[in-house]
Amino acid sequence: MLALYHAEPLANTMKVLIALEEKGLDFESHYVDLHRFEQHEPAFLAINPAGQVPVLVHDGQTIVESTVINEYLEEVFPQTPLLPGSPAARATARALNKFVDDVVMPSVSMIAWHHRVRKVAQRTDPAEMERMIARIPLAAQRAKWRTIAGASFSEEEMALSRERIGEAAARFEAALATSPWLAGAYSLADINAFSHVGARLPWFPDAFNAHKTPRLLDWADRMGARPAVVRVQAMENRTGQRLDGAAPIEREVLAG
Amino acid sequence: MLALYHAEPLANTMKVLIALEEKGLDFESHYVDLHRFEQHEPAFLAINPAGQVPVLVHDGQTIVESTVINEYLEEVFPQTPLLPGSPAARATARALNKFVDDVVMPSVSMIAWHHRVRKVAQRTDPAEMERMIARIPLAAQRAKWRTIAGASFSEEEMALSRERIGEAAARFEAALATSPWLAGAYSLADINAFSHVGARLPWFPDAFNAHKTPRLLDWADRMGARPAVVRVQAMENRTGQRLDGAAPIEREVLAG
Repeated sequence: MLALYHAEPLANTMKVLIALEEKGLDFESHYVDLHRFEQHEPAFLAINPAGQVPVLVHDGQTIVESTVINEYLEEVFPQTPLLPGSPAARATARALNKFVDDVVMPSVSMIAWHHRVRKVAQRTDPAEMERMIARIPLAAQRAKWRTIAGASFSEEEMALSRERIGEAAARFEAALATSPWLAGAYSLADINAFSHVGARLPWFPDAFNAHKTPRLLDWADRMGARPAVVRVQAMENRTGQRLDGAAPIEREVLAG
Repeated sequence: MLALYHAEPLANTMKVLIALEEKGLDFESHYVDLHRFEQHEPAFLAINPAGQVPVLVHDGQTIVESTVINEYLEEVFPQTPLLPGSPAARATARALNKFVDDVVMPSVSMIAWHHRVRKVAQRTDPAEMERMIARIPLAAQRAKWRTIAGASFSEEEMALSRERIGEAAARFEAALATSPWLAGAYSLADINAFSHVGARLPWFPDAFNAHKTPRLLDWADRMGARPAVVRVQAMENRTGQRLDGAAPIEREVLAG
């Protein structure tokens, strides 16, 4: 029996949902409402003391961290392989996967928090906000909420995030010059990159456009057309938000 | 044939050296002098465009990122397993490994840069410093060098790093209450944690001490007594630096 504790089908939650769908795995869905900060409530902290989604529970075993969950799914359910067969090619996919975790995810998250999540903080009563922040388990997450409840990130921090997104654009575009997917065969690296930035390319027109990254735009189209990705993007999204940047996108970044 | 491009036997370099030694693997050593910024020179960028050590080359295949290199070694050289056998236990080890990568490494690195690397920046001619920074491939590394060449990190940033190290101390101590190693059996998580903080516990007496973390102090002793770790700590260290915090430790953190 597989159970997934998750938020909207976006970012880290999207990443695991795509892997589950690619492998054709049924799972029991447990929705965690990030807008109500359910991820920091005792009931959820009993499942993941870090207070973060997604969490996979398989036959009583709890697996945390989306990158680790996807490696676990790959080991236990080898159908539709999402890592290449040779160790060196697997290392290439894992290094790119780590680049998404370390460079892309935090950069996109900072910009999204600045533009979207800040509104959540601003319309919440300050005393209530402080109570919510005080019970966040991870120091870095507490600091991020305090930043967003205050004057937000500095211009230097925001500029660095934009620069790192440009760096990712160049690296991805170069990788796609030699293969149709980011790390040779279709892999967890594609799923990770799509979930964090590929599904949101219109957010960053300076970094991603037909002139600078034609291959990446084509890759994003091919990703979006995969049946597994179509199914994930059609999943219930209680905020009604869409990824075209036109509608509110607050909830998707609360777990970043 | 295995070849390793590496710096002093510390931090990310130490992590791969311990894995190689645990598995009894011979390798050709290529020393990269971080003090001379050799990692940003064209000759090294041809090997790793990110300009970071360590890099493993195996039968002509280049593997980057210390966490990925250790997973590669584990797959190709299964002798002396460094990940548990069951997928769920492997996931536990990988999640802890990722916690070290995401929380411990950057926090320890920031404090070490503030106290040690800053001196390198301060005694380098500013024009030369700017030339060196300009050729660093990664935006985040450029920003880190500019910060250290200027007024350094803010007190808020330093406080957050110290808080995160305290968080790691609590998590490690709790893990050691149920098993002698951080993730059940001895694993890559122990090697990672030791390389980034376990070998430097005296740097942080508030976080690590006989009162708060008795099990972790014992674990660090057991780690340091492992023959593979003894061999790594005896390897040539061209700075003559030691890990007791008494001698200069500048070089070890340049790759952070």
